[in-house]
Amino acid sequence: MPDVKVKLAQRSYTVRIGAGLLDKSCQLLSDLDLHGKILIVSNKKIFGLYGKQLQANLEKHYSTQVYLIGDGEKYKSFGVLQKVLRFLIQNKFERSDTIAALGGGVVGDLAGFAAAVYLRGINFVQLPTTLLAQVDSSVGGKTAVNDSLGKNLIGAFYQPRLVIADTKTLRSLPARELRCGLGEIVKYGLIDTPRLLTALGQKADITANLLAQCCADLLAQCCRIKAKIVSADERENDRRAILNFGHTIGHALETISHYRISHGEAVALGALGAAHISIMRGYLPWQTLDKLQKLFTKLGLPTHTGRRLDPDQIYRVMQSDKKVADSRLRMVLLKAIGKPIVCPVEYAEIARALAII
Amino acid sequence: MPDVKVKLAQRSYTVRIGAGLLDKSCQLLSDLDLHGKILIVSNKKIFGLYGKQLQANLEKHYSTQVYLIGDGEKYKSFGVLQKVLRFLIQNKFERSDTIAALGGGVVGDLAGFAAAVYLRGINFVQLPTTLLAQVDSSVGGKTAVNDSLGKNLIGAFYQPRLVIADTKTLRSLPARELRCGLGEIVKYGLIDTPRLLTALGQKADITANLLAQCCADLLAQCCRIKAKIVSADERENDRRAILNFGHTIGHALETISHYRISHGEAVALGALGAAHISIMRGYLPWQTLDKLQKLFTKLGLPTHTGRRLDPDQIYRVMQSDKKVADSRLRMVLLKAIGKPIVCPVEYAEIARALAII
Repeated sequence: MPDVKVKLAQRSYTVRIGAGLLDKSCQLLSDLDLHGKILIVSNKKIFGLYGKQLQANLEKHYSTQVYLIGDGEKYKSFGVLQKVLRFLIQNKFERSDTIAALGGGVVGDLAGFAAAVYLRGINFVQLPTTLLAQVDSSVGGKTAVNDSLGKNLIGAFYQPRLVIADTKTLRSLPARELRCGLGEIVKYGLIDTPRLLTALGQKADITANLLAQCCADLLAQCCRIKAKIVSADERENDRRAILNFGHTIGHALETISHYRISHGEAVALGALGAAHISIMRGYLPWQTLDKLQKLFTKLGLPTHTGRRLDPDQIYRVMQSDKKVADSRLRMVLLKAIGKPIVCPVEYAEIARALAII
Repeated sequence: MPDVKVKLAQRSYTVRIGAGLLDKSCQLLSDLDLHGKILIVSNKKIFGLYGKQLQANLEKHYSTQVYLIGDGEKYKSFGVLQKVLRFLIQNKFERSDTIAALGGGVVGDLAGFAAAVYLRGINFVQLPTTLLAQVDSSVGGKTAVNDSLGKNLIGAFYQPRLVIADTKTLRSLPARELRCGLGEIVKYGLIDTPRLLTALGQKADITANLLAQCCADLLAQCCRIKAKIVSADERENDRRAILNFGHTIGHALETISHYRISHGEAVALGALGAAHISIMRGYLPWQTLDKLQKLFTKLGLPTHTGRRLDPDQIYRVMQSDKKVADSRLRMVLLKAIGKPIVCPVEYAEIARALAII
């Protein structure tokens, strides 16, 4: 089982990756000396698939309760956060109790933020069930809720005590969500480890079953990249911003489409936009765009939004991005494949990039 | 000017205490290399007294905006927090911008929590204007909002970059709020430095003017006690809990009275309750209660709620206290004056303590 260690002094933790780990949750939590009650936060769909199994396992040692939220980005809201917090208060959860997030990025971000602010912080464990959450959002401690004016604007850096990624849960992943995760793997290839792109390009047909069975190493490789970057810059003062490659345009697309464009699709489109700007600046050869578009098409990721984007509207939304500094929008560009830089970008560059997606 | 250093590695900061410091705010913030915009969060009353002065000073170098909340504990709510956050989003505050809290504990706790979660954390500066905030709540990084089911149940540990305590602002302090602050000074005497009690007992008549003019050293002494405890245990895993002396019963009194009993009054009453339990256990001599009651009367602090307290109701509210562990209520008691301990207490002990307040 390939474990990944996120090194953050007294906040260090392990990402466990492997098939069937949900059935070992109780033991893994006991090994951390966690005691007290556990609130499982999940959504109806995921809980229907894996909730009873997890709960049965945890109840060997723990008393558990369940809070289910709706399925979708719109439930990652201030309103739902408040409901989770009131549930914790009403059920007298204590400082030494634990919140376990069973689900994808929405569940993990919301439950993690609740764990961060309830009684000023209680134990938190991530049990990611989507590819995107297993390779990205469950690792690194970013928690947040959305505001109608923008994504992830309210939140906390709050590290889990443990991440349990059971690759078996990927089997039930809808194709669209599988693609979202592949988009994040492409991101790691572009900002850090180019051979991930080669590996993805060589696989004939990537299905959820394939990933569930034999890709624990691929997931671990992604988590290792993320862990390395997060360990060096937990609170994104600097280096960690490169993990947002594709996300600046991506978040704006999610916001203006009211999350009809999914996170993974938006990031893929944002990555093409950022690659285009990098090319226009002469950092990357023109062929890169073509190669990326071909890879995306092979992976089932979009290369066009299918609509005319209004650069003014998108630029306005981008002004709320957390990387804006001194009123200047900054984006992650590529000096070369595997060599990201964060730098200010101009309106004209973004408008031209939007024209190709 | 007696400065106090709160030592927390890279989150260390200084508490500046002195008359006329509001007029040096701009320089003090520049010295920290803070740049960008400043949102002054305050309430109407305090802003009317000192807001323009502070704003004029800060505007020498900074662009400022103002957000005013209502005056009183009930505005330290999730709803008001959300409004402040939306204001920050709508006015495009950035990661490198700053929130400055001008006011007492309510303003500081709410503004600090907003700073903790907006964009996952922006710069925060405390400008406490009440005695209670200057000796206690502005130091140590506890931020929170209340829920109708209990006080400070939702929040974050988030340290300010700087605390500026202008003792001149104490001149306008209503007598009741002055007493609240004196109650916290009594607390420091009881849990750490008994000679503070002697000092308070010896002063003939403590007025706000007196404190404003010549008590910077007294305030600094209190801040130094708090800084020492916080530096040893920032997140209240252990030692920091002793700062909650008087607060377990106190918070419950605030909650059941809907904050008609003020924080300082509630803590004073809670301190008497905790002293009573300590006496019943044989930790303290019986005379202690009498001495404390006399000191409180001299300082204008209450020694009785003036109503019959329902122990069942108060015990129920206390169950939401953050110090509850394994469903057992814990309180800070005194093994001797200056020697606090945190330990489980029984319903019967609390019922007897409530009977004397």
